[in-house]
Amino acid sequence: MRFGLIGAGRIGRIHGGNVAARAGAELAVIADADAKAAESLASLTGAKVGTIEAIITGKDIDAVLICAPTDLHSELIEAAARAGKAVFCEKPVDLSAERIRACLAVVAKAGTPLMIGFNRRFDPNFAALKGRLDRGAVGDVEIVTIISRDPAPPPLTYIARSGGLFRDMMIHDFDLARFLLGEEPIAVTAVGSALVSADIGQAGDVDTAAVLLETRSGRIAQISNSRRALYGYDQRIEVHGAKGMIRAGNIHETTVEVAGSAGFTSDPIQNFFLERYAAAYRLELDAFIDAVSAGRAPSPAGEDGLRAQMIADAATESCQSHRRIAIEG
Amino acid sequence: MRFGLIGAGRIGRIHGGNVAARAGAELAVIADADAKAAESLASLTGAKVGTIEAIITGKDIDAVLICAPTDLHSELIEAAARAGKAVFCEKPVDLSAERIRACLAVVAKAGTPLMIGFNRRFDPNFAALKGRLDRGAVGDVEIVTIISRDPAPPPLTYIARSGGLFRDMMIHDFDLARFLLGEEPIAVTAVGSALVSADIGQAGDVDTAAVLLETRSGRIAQISNSRRALYGYDQRIEVHGAKGMIRAGNIHETTVEVAGSAGFTSDPIQNFFLERYAAAYRLELDAFIDAVSAGRAPSPAGEDGLRAQMIADAATESCQSHRRIAIEG
Amino acid sequence: MRFGLIGAGRIGRIHGGNVAARAGAELAVIADADAKAAESLASLTGAKVGTIEAIITGKDIDAVLICAPTDLHSELIEAAARAGKAVFCEKPVDLSAERIRACLAVVAKAGTPLMIGFNRRFDPNFAALKGRLDRGAVGDVEIVTIISRDPAPPPLTYIARSGGLFRDMMIHDFDLARFLLGEEPIAVTAVGSALVSADIGQAGDVDTAAVLLETRSGRIAQISNSRRALYGYDQRIEVHGAKGMIRAGNIHETTVEVAGSAGFTSDPIQNFFLERYAAAYRLELDAFIDAVSAGRAPSPAGEDGLRAQMIADAATESCQSHRRIAIEG
Amino acid sequence: MRFGLIGAGRIGRIHGGNVAARAGAELAVIADADAKAAESLASLTGAKVGTIEAIITGKDIDAVLICAPTDLHSELIEAAARAGKAVFCEKPVDLSAERIRACLAVVAKAGTPLMIGFNRRFDPNFAALKGRLDRGAVGDVEIVTIISRDPAPPPLTYIARSGGLFRDMMIHDFDLARFLLGEEPIAVTAVGSALVSADIGQAGDVDTAAVLLETRSGRIAQISNSRRALYGYDQRIEVHGAKGMIRAGNIHETTVEVAGSAGFTSDPIQNFFLERYAAAYRLELDAFIDAVSAGRAPSPAGEDGLRAQMIADAATESCQSHRRIAIEG
Repeated sequence: MRFGLIGAGRIGRIHGGNVAARAGAELAVIADADAKAAESLASLTGAKVGTIEAIITGKDIDAVLICAPTDLHSELIEAAARAGKAVFCEKPVDLSAERIRACLAVVAKAGTPLMIGFNRRFDPNFAALKGRLDRGAVGDVEIVTIISRDPAPPPLTYIARSGGLFRDMMIHDFDLARFLLGEEPIAVTAVGSALVSADIGQAGDVDTAAVLLETRSGRIAQISNSRRALYGYDQRIEVHGAKGMIRAGNIHETTVEVAGSAGFTSDPIQNFFLERYAAAYRLELDAFIDAVSAGRAPSPAGEDGLRAQMIADAATESCQSHRRIAIEG
Repeated sequence: MRFGLIGAGRIGRIHGGNVAARAGAELAVIADADAKAAESLASLTGAKVGTIEAIITGKDIDAVLICAPTDLHSELIEAAARAGKAVFCEKPVDLSAERIRACLAVVAKAGTPLMIGFNRRFDPNFAALKGRLDRGAVGDVEIVTIISRDPAPPPLTYIARSGGLFRDMMIHDFDLARFLLGEEPIAVTAVGSALVSADIGQAGDVDTAAVLLETRSGRIAQISNSRRALYGYDQRIEVHGAKGMIRAGNIHETTVEVAGSAGFTSDPIQNFFLERYAAAYRLELDAFIDAVSAGRAPSPAGEDGLRAQMIADAATESCQSHRRIAIEG
Repeated sequence: MRFGLIGAGRIGRIHGGNVAARAGAELAVIADADAKAAESLASLTGAKVGTIEAIITGKDIDAVLICAPTDLHSELIEAAARAGKAVFCEKPVDLSAERIRACLAVVAKAGTPLMIGFNRRFDPNFAALKGRLDRGAVGDVEIVTIISRDPAPPPLTYIARSGGLFRDMMIHDFDLARFLLGEEPIAVTAVGSALVSADIGQAGDVDTAAVLLETRSGRIAQISNSRRALYGYDQRIEVHGAKGMIRAGNIHETTVEVAGSAGFTSDPIQNFFLERYAAAYRLELDAFIDAVSAGRAPSPAGEDGLRAQMIADAATESCQSHRRIAIEG
Repeated sequence: MRFGLIGAGRIGRIHGGNVAARAGAELAVIADADAKAAESLASLTGAKVGTIEAIITGKDIDAVLICAPTDLHSELIEAAARAGKAVFCEKPVDLSAERIRACLAVVAKAGTPLMIGFNRRFDPNFAALKGRLDRGAVGDVEIVTIISRDPAPPPLTYIARSGGLFRDMMIHDFDLARFLLGEEPIAVTAVGSALVSADIGQAGDVDTAAVLLETRSGRIAQISNSRRALYGYDQRIEVHGAKGMIRAGNIHETTVEVAGSAGFTSDPIQNFFLERYAAAYRLELDAFIDAVSAGRAPSPAGEDGLRAQMIADAATESCQSHRRIAIEG
């Protein structure tokens, strides 16, 4: 499977490197408005530098990896789908649910595979948790609790274009919640505040937030997010079911523990998302390649991107209006 | 300090035994409508059996321990306060906030000490957490997360008179949340369902619930409750602040761990509240005696009972109306 | 069962209190050369103060609890046995194995019950470990590892009369090793040094030591001891068998954990042996009373006291001679 | 730095792959008696297949990686050293200490760098432990405890040529013990038995063993080994010092934990040495390249290989003779 990669920034470099290192896949062409970024990654991976158009129209390109800025995602997906390419697109599809719907209609018409990069589903710990959940480890799901805390806030310039915490950061947790609840949320209540950075508050966003999701049968998800965690990148799932509890969590930087008169001390947890989710990035790409090769629809699909975005929109509205918001069916 | 104990049921026996065992305190008189219960406890502790009236009017009784059914709490508090006694009353003061206000007005007029039995504040682990929080261990509080799960649901007859999960069970967590947030909640959103027992649902109550509390400055508390936990009595607190995280949790039945081809297995956690909170019951009584002896107002006070009840009322309304409910200032 | 207690020092107070608090047992008489110690404990427990002779010859005394200094143990055991009393004696029976043999012969002739206070067998965690071991949790035992570290060294005056680390401290671990190996050690190799206190070295003792025990079938026990552990009283067992590993360990002072930029910190472990082994002291006395009441021989018996002493003697010789020492069959 | 690799078996493939992947190093030539093994690795890494002689005499070869069978190690080291190459040789240098001494004399005369592959020093957890130990985390070292258990025994054919457990398996722990004690062991006592496999016993070897090491100043190391651990590849270090304890251990296969009525279960630990020590293999090669590039002597050096072998020889003798064996200075 020959890939064209659009976008050679931080996330593009990860996916590009993973394609290049995988047997049965080839990173053929890289396009980026920043020629140096494209060339740098090309020299590392053996790919050629090209244009977006060359990738979209290239007859020897089977799949397009979209790692461009968010506002280009939907049109690139459409163009690639129309050209018959399989598409792997970083989340989100778009910051507008309406625009996502239109985009998915184009993809549906083209009949081409589309996978959205909700990488956390592929984290080996979270994936193992999901597998055991599906095999009945704790019976029917009742409460899902997700804690996600970044080590430190991103730059304000990033915040300004991010769509806000619920669409930028918690969207991952909305996807995970859907993945784990086994049922669609029908309502969301969100609260948030700017406790980490007054500047984030002035920019109209929050940096500390918590959400309640409800499903029709009465299952509940609790999510909390913060843009700060001095002890590392905190990413935890806990699921309670009729027969017990299952959880998965963080990895400490080392297994070293020191005991002295002040107690027992172990290391902070891994604190960079590229390290925390390195395996997840690799495994989601494997899943995409495997599905497309086998003629199966890849998952998470465009519809998953849409549902997560709808929840994020509703959460944003809830946080601003101080009301519980129903989510469209 | 000579105590009269009203109510020799399960909780009365705990407090009665703790009074009897404490140096500097004496369990003088026990009253219970069930004479056998009173006599049984009297024979264990060396106390006499008497009437409520004898306790309230007894000149040699310094303090009254109220462990009677909830619907008698407020009138007993009033009678004891008017008689000049120090009062320790099990939670809740009453299921009606209005009634509590009236009761507290009587106590205020009498100028007598009143302490409410929110025992979890005195759990050694939770108390240690609170102490370190107050000494700045994690900086300003941002998010408080409380998980409280009973091993198994109580009888339906208990549920029917309990006031519902929010007033009966989660009220402990509302008190803890206030204790830990360091600021009053101004709004509550509650969701709940009957996933453990359809009968509980038919009785109009929930057995699985989650709540979001908000304070004026933007601090958040998340609480989840369930009437079922097969792995023991699950009682956990986690507090995130500007400088880190502090948490306290459960104790396993033993420290034994077995490793084999299926992995590493450790014991369930302690699963009975009398065992889990044995120290807490003892320490809250010590705190009452110490405060009254020193002429200090005991804490948690009647006002704490009122505030927790107001939150529980609002949570109940929120769960039923599917709306965020503001809490009166 | 009516008890006479000989010795009202630290350990005597524990056992005396446990007898007094137990239903079905009564602490009748207390004897101690230090009249104040005897009176103080008598006033707490409701016992009378008396002489050793009064206890030994008292017709209404069923059992004698020996908590006197070590050099009196064997003659007191003999006197009590000859008088037909059941005897519970603190470890060790004597510092001389020969003297122990003579003492046990007297007891055997009298046909009276004798239990030795190797309390660690009754620690709830260690007892649970042993129970699961016996039920096959890890298959046939292969390696037993015991770590035992006191928080701080005892006074030099204590050291001087203690018989040395192997007879005073590690004797507990020799008993545990026998208990867990399920087979008698046939040889011991001990190494030791004075790393904690040069004074201990000058007194001819060691404060840091490790031992290898071998059984006929090839099972191995490893024991390490130190007179110092700044993080608490460290008491751990780990047993490897054909099917896996089982271990039991320490309890932290609280369950509180703090996470910050320097990592995750939890409390020191409980650091006083009276706290660490409070339940063990109570449970071993229960076992004594239960066995004697039922007409069963109590365990650990005098023979266990002898075997542990023989290993301790061999370890002491090994450490001094730098040779592996065989243990008599 | 251009490398020639001698031996393309399991361990050769690891080192070869690590050289090929490292910036600043090149895997130039691979030699193996098994041409297919050499070719297979060459095709993966872009190296050429050649002869041992071509590597030793190759003017463009800077460093030789020796992963050949143990009985060829010393002569290959000598040949490469005489040819002026830097040498990285897998442990052990030889099964005979005398032969090692002769080999090291040749290397010393040649003045070329030699590093021995005691990879565990480079495990990130063990290396972090050592770093903190050196910075005084627990004060002066008193007792080092090392537990090392393989998941399952190797084939009997491997055992037959291995030199026995102490020279084949525990030699890693002898090196670690020296690394951690900060002082040379002066005596060893070893006990061992064949509890895992009677065949191993019949072959004259042991599969279960424990060792005591003593240093001149009285520091102690305890090591235990087994050829079986059903719960994974168990590799732990615990060091006690004057100020506390430091330890480092294993990584579970996932962070998933399940709680139910039978308790809390987590996964087995990683169970394959290539996975457990993947980072260690990479980091030891980095250390070799960095040292040689900088003109520093690499560590662990040939002398470390000799000292570990001397301890292994003494342990073997101790186990067979049932005596404590002094180690030559």
